[in-house]
Amino acid sequence: MRLPEGFKSVVRACSALPGIGERSAQRFAFHLLEKPDKARDIAEAVGALSGSVGRCSRCYNLADKASSTGLCVICEDPARDLSQLCVVENIPHLMAIESSGTFHGTYHVLHGALSPIKGIGPEELHFPELRLRVSEESVQEIIVATDVDVEGEATAAYIADFLSDMSVTVSRIATGVPMGSDLEFLDATTLSRALQGRTRQG
Amino acid sequence: MRLPEGFKSVVRACSALPGIGERSAQRFAFHLLEKPDKARDIAEAVGALSGSVGRCSRCYNLADKASSTGLCVICEDPARDLSQLCVVENIPHLMAIESSGTFHGTYHVLHGALSPIKGIGPEELHFPELRLRVSEESVQEIIVATDVDVEGEATAAYIADFLSDMSVTVSRIATGVPMGSDLEFLDATTLSRALQGRTRQG
Repeated sequence: MRLPEGFKSVVRACSALPGIGERSAQRFAFHLLEKPDKARDIAEAVGALSGSVGRCSRCYNLADKASSTGLCVICEDPARDLSQLCVVENIPHLMAIESSGTFHGTYHVLHGALSPIKGIGPEELHFPELRLRVSEESVQEIIVATDVDVEGEATAAYIADFLSDMSVTVSRIATGVPMGSDLEFLDATTLSRALQGRTRQG
Repeated sequence: MRLPEGFKSVVRACSALPGIGERSAQRFAFHLLEKPDKARDIAEAVGALSGSVGRCSRCYNLADKASSTGLCVICEDPARDLSQLCVVENIPHLMAIESSGTFHGTYHVLHGALSPIKGIGPEELHFPELRLRVSEESVQEIIVATDVDVEGEATAAYIADFLSDMSVTVSRIATGVPMGSDLEFLDATTLSRALQGRTRQG
């Protein structure tokens, strides 16, 4: 059946969302037709998004464009420990670390990881800004919390090399057995890394 | 971490979509921040939806509001067989039957099924309009293709009763074993219905 153009436009636009195929997009369109007020909420919120939300001028976290400082809530917070700086690949990773509640320093969001396959080289990521922060701020330790996969490991190695001439410690989050998991079902690499990274008990 | 208001508005609005929780909505928001052109497409398409897409004034299928007749593409098609009218619960059901390619009559979309639990009585559905069509159009057979569940069955029984004084045949789609399924794993009700509804072979 030939569908009305306005309906097809919604299906097409929503299919571009991550994890959403044509079928889900069609469900969205039917739902929004039934609930015009929800459709208005979405149109308004999504339409205003890029005008109201930007990136922190210091760490590249989410920042409210209405903020006079141009900084995110973390960089604006005077209680944060400026001696520790945690480098992450993206904002969801930053949010995951924040919700763990154990880190009280500041962050630096690279917005990606080195990946020759995806064509992402050092120029695409916020490395120069990281170097600048190390030289200008009182940073003593850089904690590299990129993913523990090929890209994340390469990025971590690059950062250590890139900052090797500066008086700053570069550390890497531990690789090991995640809480509650059964050793039997862990992959060999994780296990061997857990053995290598063993710490003294007691 | 406290998120910017504009970001939270998008998450809140998208969480209202069917099957979308806060986590998926947050992924949408991050994605749309990275792709402002996709965000613009969605805002425009969703914003224009209720202004451009309505319901067919005859059968309540989707209809383009720009159409001068107020009818959907099926009701506008002179090749459709007006003697057969298929009653469905909603537009996705109509689309499923259309894509089977076996039905060439017209439709009537009730936009729901009788359900005392959900508070849906006969007044909430397009029954009077169905009666009107039977009296005004050259309908000879009403094929009731509501779901084969409690609500759909009750709706089918209601339609048969509601139209019993009119000179029209009311039929019901067959209940039975779906193609390719294994009898061993079918529920008892489907099997007993398949036995009751047996047809002569050869």
